[in-house]
Amino acid sequence: MFSMRLITQTYGLVSKRLLASSARTMTSNRVLTADNINPNVITMQYAVRGPIVIRAVELEKELAKGATKPFKSVIKANIGDAHAMGQVPITFIRQVLACVTEKSLMERGGYPPDVIKHAEEILGGCGGNSGGAYSQSTGVDIIRKHVAEYIQRRDGGIPCDPENVILSGGASESIRNVLKLFMQHSAGGKKTGIMIPIPQYPLYSASIEEFNLGQVGYYLNEENAWSLDEAELERSLAESRKDFNTKVLVVINPGNPTGQVLSRENIESIIKFAHKHKLFLMADEVYQDNVYAEGSKFHSFKKVLCEMGKPYTDLELASFHSVSKGYMGECGLRGGYVEFHNLDPEVYVLFKKMISAKLCSTVLGQAVIDCVVNPPQPGEPSYDLWKRERDAVLASLKERAVLVQKAYGSIEGISCNPVQGAMYAFPQIHLPKRAIEKARSLNQEPDFFYAMQLLENTGVCIVPGSGFGQKEGTYHFRTTILPQPALMKEMLDRFGKFHARFLEEYKD
Amino acid sequence: MFSMRLITQTYGLVSKRLLASSARTMTSNRVLTADNINPNVITMQYAVRGPIVIRAVELEKELAKGATKPFKSVIKANIGDAHAMGQVPITFIRQVLACVTEKSLMERGGYPPDVIKHAEEILGGCGGNSGGAYSQSTGVDIIRKHVAEYIQRRDGGIPCDPENVILSGGASESIRNVLKLFMQHSAGGKKTGIMIPIPQYPLYSASIEEFNLGQVGYYLNEENAWSLDEAELERSLAESRKDFNTKVLVVINPGNPTGQVLSRENIESIIKFAHKHKLFLMADEVYQDNVYAEGSKFHSFKKVLCEMGKPYTDLELASFHSVSKGYMGECGLRGGYVEFHNLDPEVYVLFKKMISAKLCSTVLGQAVIDCVVNPPQPGEPSYDLWKRERDAVLASLKERAVLVQKAYGSIEGISCNPVQGAMYAFPQIHLPKRAIEKARSLNQEPDFFYAMQLLENTGVCIVPGSGFGQKEGTYHFRTTILPQPALMKEMLDRFGKFHARFLEEYKD
Repeated sequence: MFSMRLITQTYGLVSKRLLASSARTMTSNRVLTADNINPNVITMQYAVRGPIVIRAVELEKELAKGATKPFKSVIKANIGDAHAMGQVPITFIRQVLACVTEKSLMERGGYPPDVIKHAEEILGGCGGNSGGAYSQSTGVDIIRKHVAEYIQRRDGGIPCDPENVILSGGASESIRNVLKLFMQHSAGGKKTGIMIPIPQYPLYSASIEEFNLGQVGYYLNEENAWSLDEAELERSLAESRKDFNTKVLVVINPGNPTGQVLSRENIESIIKFAHKHKLFLMADEVYQDNVYAEGSKFHSFKKVLCEMGKPYTDLELASFHSVSKGYMGECGLRGGYVEFHNLDPEVYVLFKKMISAKLCSTVLGQAVIDCVVNPPQPGEPSYDLWKRERDAVLASLKERAVLVQKAYGSIEGISCNPVQGAMYAFPQIHLPKRAIEKARSLNQEPDFFYAMQLLENTGVCIVPGSGFGQKEGTYHFRTTILPQPALMKEMLDRFGKFHARFLEEYKD
Repeated sequence: MFSMRLITQTYGLVSKRLLASSARTMTSNRVLTADNINPNVITMQYAVRGPIVIRAVELEKELAKGATKPFKSVIKANIGDAHAMGQVPITFIRQVLACVTEKSLMERGGYPPDVIKHAEEILGGCGGNSGGAYSQSTGVDIIRKHVAEYIQRRDGGIPCDPENVILSGGASESIRNVLKLFMQHSAGGKKTGIMIPIPQYPLYSASIEEFNLGQVGYYLNEENAWSLDEAELERSLAESRKDFNTKVLVVINPGNPTGQVLSRENIESIIKFAHKHKLFLMADEVYQDNVYAEGSKFHSFKKVLCEMGKPYTDLELASFHSVSKGYMGECGLRGGYVEFHNLDPEVYVLFKKMISAKLCSTVLGQAVIDCVVNPPQPGEPSYDLWKRERDAVLASLKERAVLVQKAYGSIEGISCNPVQGAMYAFPQIHLPKRAIEKARSLNQEPDFFYAMQLLENTGVCIVPGSGFGQKEGTYHFRTTILPQPALMKEMLDRFGKFHARFLEEYKD
């Protein structure tokens, strides 16, 4: 019964089919049921694709079948999925990928020589000169080398050994692989605690739950542009230690869902904190190309800790990057990597053994990584187009970052920090007491209730703040800045009207 | 110390660098070390990419740098990786993939209209008409529909609902996702037992270990062409129950590493056994296109259990397929799927929630699945070439299946069952007592010792039977049948000479 309740609560809004079948299920003679399934699968949540998004997909299908709704289209601002929101692929990347895929294209003419050179170099690293061969589990060697060169350039010459770079299907896979190392199966012992920001990207909370680790939240300082506060880190760690053996500190910079870009000073204080308490650092830096605010700059944790010198250089660090974000937004192609710094060599051997059972990540996803870390250079035939396309995407994102913050910030009952980087705003909504009571009466989080009302009435799909975590008694939502300008205007228009009606309906 | 010993034993042959650093490590001040890492990561093993393969890669690099060895090239018969062994991609698949990747190719001309239609249909199912958008975690809907249609055709019209099909990055990912459902984190309770064939494909043993499940081996009957024996299933299950709560039966058909194709009668007896003991069936059917022996035919578990009618139809079944094997061999592109039959609807909702945190599998890998399940039809422009290429690959594999069995079967001290299907032979080697003693003195499994000697002396890379499991006191190795004919001849030649010398050296 326990599990039934939980599922009904979470998925109640979209589970008509499920509920219809539950009578059958309750007397199920099946081997695997919700009452004996891996319990962590029941408790884990991933809000970015949770019930609201599932309902949005249903609504889309209903509209496609001609259903009448108070809106003509669903606008998905729930997920950082640039191409789905109309962003056009970077020509250079797709040309290289096409040549890697179908080699005869390179002979047929029509491709710039640097595209061909690039494709040939990738294929040269593949078994049988085909992307259809498995790569080593760590990835294609020449691509790992290019990643290392990219990191070294990015970090002003601080050395990066290709041997420390492991490619994966998106950064998510690497992040999960690293977290997995900290699992303890022994009964009785304390779980390993993983410090994550609140609000956080729910990949962390979901994976921590799935892997039976301990979630240790530290609050970001909303009043100070979502920065990290050392006192709060200390509080969080100290409190965690009664329940957990806390060993890992996760930092997301630029921030998801909060869009902040950490100052160098702030990063230094975090590094000192990690050193003081002997924590393993995980730096989620997948938005490193997405920095918009004047005066903001991306500093990698690797660079900062190396420049700080001993003893900070000796910290263990795993830092992550992805082809899903940046200016390329190639989410569906699944490319990412982790760079380890100062990982125990024995642990590294074990890590490589662990990932070997999964064989390898997609070779075409790896090829995209190669294009991202090793783009056309000035003077090469593809350079001008590549630069024009990249600059246009980043400039447009920058515009939308400002637009979104201004639009939400100007609505009554909503406050919104600047979007310094990444692809999201995380505005706070000040909900009327009656709306909160109404939500509680439905056994829903108030911001979940708000987001579902928004979706059902306007077709706008955002993710409630409760899916990311937030300070008790505050309510937020995450919206991407990805809809193209016209759609963005439409979205903000629908949102503004809904919000005014909502306030009117639930005013105290 | 425990972990050091284990690592040294397993990776001792390739870990000079590791050992050199171990002194440092033993006094390591690091957060994460081999002494506190997830213990299941230490104990899991994946022989297909284990120490022998790591050494083979090292040897390749040494040869490339001009080192002198008793051989000029490494021949990798360790892994079912067709393209790496010189198999050429199927034109239709790569053309569709190129068009999906770079849409402008479709306007530029030169592609058959059915290729374009195919690519457009896939893109129509993608967000923003781009493979760069995330798909639903379950996969692109139109591709799931094509998979369901394929399964329904394959199974003589037995219905398949696309809703029961979930796409993944290779079959491995789906297999691991399903196994994960059976994890129990509660202390004290028995682990869930998973019955797997011995010999087995080490994805199973590795994942079972990683997920803290219980491995329950049942021996295949080598004397009867590696078939499944009901009495042995009963023995294995009965013995398992003192340690485990055994709930799952895994069957690999056609067999890996054993190359058998199960008769319909044998499948029926397995289904009856699963029903009698209330087991969840996992049918690994990734070699369903690879059937060579006269009289052998692939029967899917779904079809057989549906045709057997009640109560067998009510069994819970997960069956798996992949684009890595078959005639296409697109391993590196990572496409696969699971079809669920009679899964508890609540469990299904939870399964979909669980995979949502990983976002989605590669969309280009999904596109390959589409090409495989929905190939050109007679009368369409791509059909003739597609059929010619497919038939040629399968005919050549069939030839090599016979060649390999004959070659190994004719060597003194080796016996080899027919390769009825899949891509492997699993010959038994009758090792001289002195060779066994020599291996034990090195703290190595005798077949590991043999395989390493073979590699160091001839460059031929195979996987020792101990990596797959085998009856106590017997020794085997797995070799693929994938080297192209000339290379295959070369490999068999090197092997034969080595084996004769080995027998001579260690004769009793």
